[in-house]
Amino acid sequence: MAIKWSDRYSSRTSQVGASAIREIFKLTQVPGIISFAGGLPASEMFPVREVQEAATRVLKDMGSQALQYSTTEGHLPLRAFIADRISRHGIKADENNILITSGSQQAIDLISRVFIDPGERVVVERPTFSAALQTFSSYQAVCMGVDTDEDGAVVSQLEEVIDGSTKFVYIQPNFQNPGGTTLTLERRRELVATSERHGLPIVEDDPYYEFRFSGADLPLLLELDAQERPGGRHGDGLGEVNIIRLGTFSKTLAPGLRLGWIVAPRDVIGPLVIAKQAADLHTSILNQMLAYEVIKDGFLGPHVQRLRAIYRERRDVMLSAMDRHLPGGVHWAVPEGGFFLWVTLPECLDASVLLQEAVKQGVAFVPGVTFFPEDGRQPRSNTMRLSFSFCTPSVIEEGILRLGRALSRQLEG
Amino acid sequence: MAIKWSDRYSSRTSQVGASAIREIFKLTQVPGIISFAGGLPASEMFPVREVQEAATRVLKDMGSQALQYSTTEGHLPLRAFIADRISRHGIKADENNILITSGSQQAIDLISRVFIDPGERVVVERPTFSAALQTFSSYQAVCMGVDTDEDGAVVSQLEEVIDGSTKFVYIQPNFQNPGGTTLTLERRRELVATSERHGLPIVEDDPYYEFRFSGADLPLLLELDAQERPGGRHGDGLGEVNIIRLGTFSKTLAPGLRLGWIVAPRDVIGPLVIAKQAADLHTSILNQMLAYEVIKDGFLGPHVQRLRAIYRERRDVMLSAMDRHLPGGVHWAVPEGGFFLWVTLPECLDASVLLQEAVKQGVAFVPGVTFFPEDGRQPRSNTMRLSFSFCTPSVIEEGILRLGRALSRQLEG
Repeated sequence: MAIKWSDRYSSRTSQVGASAIREIFKLTQVPGIISFAGGLPASEMFPVREVQEAATRVLKDMGSQALQYSTTEGHLPLRAFIADRISRHGIKADENNILITSGSQQAIDLISRVFIDPGERVVVERPTFSAALQTFSSYQAVCMGVDTDEDGAVVSQLEEVIDGSTKFVYIQPNFQNPGGTTLTLERRRELVATSERHGLPIVEDDPYYEFRFSGADLPLLLELDAQERPGGRHGDGLGEVNIIRLGTFSKTLAPGLRLGWIVAPRDVIGPLVIAKQAADLHTSILNQMLAYEVIKDGFLGPHVQRLRAIYRERRDVMLSAMDRHLPGGVHWAVPEGGFFLWVTLPECLDASVLLQEAVKQGVAFVPGVTFFPEDGRQPRSNTMRLSFSFCTPSVIEEGILRLGRALSRQLEG
Repeated sequence: MAIKWSDRYSSRTSQVGASAIREIFKLTQVPGIISFAGGLPASEMFPVREVQEAATRVLKDMGSQALQYSTTEGHLPLRAFIADRISRHGIKADENNILITSGSQQAIDLISRVFIDPGERVVVERPTFSAALQTFSSYQAVCMGVDTDEDGAVVSQLEEVIDGSTKFVYIQPNFQNPGGTTLTLERRRELVATSERHGLPIVEDDPYYEFRFSGADLPLLLELDAQERPGGRHGDGLGEVNIIRLGTFSKTLAPGLRLGWIVAPRDVIGPLVIAKQAADLHTSILNQMLAYEVIKDGFLGPHVQRLRAIYRERRDVMLSAMDRHLPGGVHWAVPEGGFFLWVTLPECLDASVLLQEAVKQGVAFVPGVTFFPEDGRQPRSNTMRLSFSFCTPSVIEEGILRLGRALSRQLEG
């Protein structure tokens, strides 16, 4: 009897359709298309030589360890390195508060696995990171949104959407993907206070933290929580914070290594480790050793400074080109960092329709609807995300010119 | 309000305790302990130089691709390579039938995710691979066992344990972990016929396929299914087979790379890709390119031959030491390949109790109970798994001597 496989899928599989963003990326793989769709880092800045030299040393000195099975928690020196960097924020984390993950996508997945039962709530920003939405949905969570404005998530809306089944709030506080917004200090304090009031866990996903182009760094949510909770708990490290913080080497080193991490209290790390053991046993120890070898003697500081300059230039080139090439009625905010520009079109335009015309003109982006949770409210269909991280300045200039052409056609049509 | 995290865990997390096997591995990390517990490959045989040279070439020629984000399906040349090897068995698989996974542990996880709803059944062997049990349990599957004997799984028991909710049968047909058993040709035909009769999916996990020490290779379940199903479907490749086949480079190259794969019909690969995208986006492209670079010009054939000789020698050394050092009443079968020996103690002994004494004597193993599903039947507590793959012959000799001492004490005590 031939199996009809689709009759066999689990209920979570049956509910999750093909990912919209995958379809869009396929569009962009047509030769000649300039893609502002992916949030890819600048390839030419990858530390290729450093990774190559690290590979030579690691394999020479520790080859049989680098190629063998390893612990689920991750490479101890790398965990200690991450704990040390977190400690600079006045937080006493140690390696037992760190789990290495296969990219921060896996961090989102493992957290979902450990906490979400079908039908329970997760609170997200409107808009939010689409791959996180996809993961939460695959665990059959109900994703409820709070709006964002120029100050980041509108934290005051939180109490309207949380209920007894709400497992956590997922937020990108800095230069958010896709909106480019940053949560102000005041909102950060308000968020931590709300978390404190309701005993509400917060997942602080912060992949772009290092890429601030102007202004001063704002405190981590993890930092505020550790400082401001009554009594403080500086003696027992992360012991009782409400925050689970995610980091990644995908932007500072290279995404091809698939290395992210979770910082969390031990009561969270424990079940995450069990979950990760069932998920993929451990993250490639070779890649963990390579990353550690590259960064252990101070590589990251100056490297991130170089990256910051590159990305700032690209943001500025894109903003300037938009000023010149996009028609009136199109609006955007200037992000203080990160990889993304969020664009609002005139109400009469639908970005998904515009995308068809844009592809004809040779440029691609991601329509904003992809980034909205299905929480019963209308997604803003006249929005789109442009990524400035991957393309060189001259390509950005040409791409925005094409986008302007597509927009003019739509507005005329 | 401080969060009590354990009150927040999902029902799947609350049900999955600490992994027993993790606890055992901790035992073995005491200095001086000889461990037959892990199923680790022989580190000294890792292709360290080849990986090093591959890293130099791949990073030099394709560095920005190797460190960038990549496709969820996996590196196309590697998928084509795997499809080509599968095709040598007379099966028309192509790259669209292959998904690269982060080790075959992730393959087990993704298949569970795509197919299992809580409370549904999975059929496994008694005993079976404990990490698979852990994954199935984490999806709240009910694992039902069929016995194994010297001919492998007792396939005739299948119809007693399958019901309408049974999602698949999970089986390791060759030199099974932990039992060392191999499914005979007759049983393979019977299994494929049963699958055909009931439209029952089979997950053929075959990590030790290459490590046969004697006798002729038996046909893959995938091969038999493709050949024997009425009408055959050689024109449309894997189109309608009932088998999902898992493979891994963890034993033939190195587990530290975390590279496994799934061979399946496209209707299975499709949702697996969506699931993997939510799980970890993609497997390290650097590692995929390294593996492909090492193997693309015929490295695997002679390398596997060398490995086979090493593992055969270790099996023989262990068998010979057992003959000399273990007391009467202890029984074992001779596996035709793989990494493991399955030992049955006199009925009066409990292997978990013996382990405490063994650790005192300086040797460790995994008690058999770890490998039995919780299907209401008694696990065989007088069994244990010894791995001969990792230790050198002289260490094996000494370890078995110690095990003999521990056994004698238990039998006297």
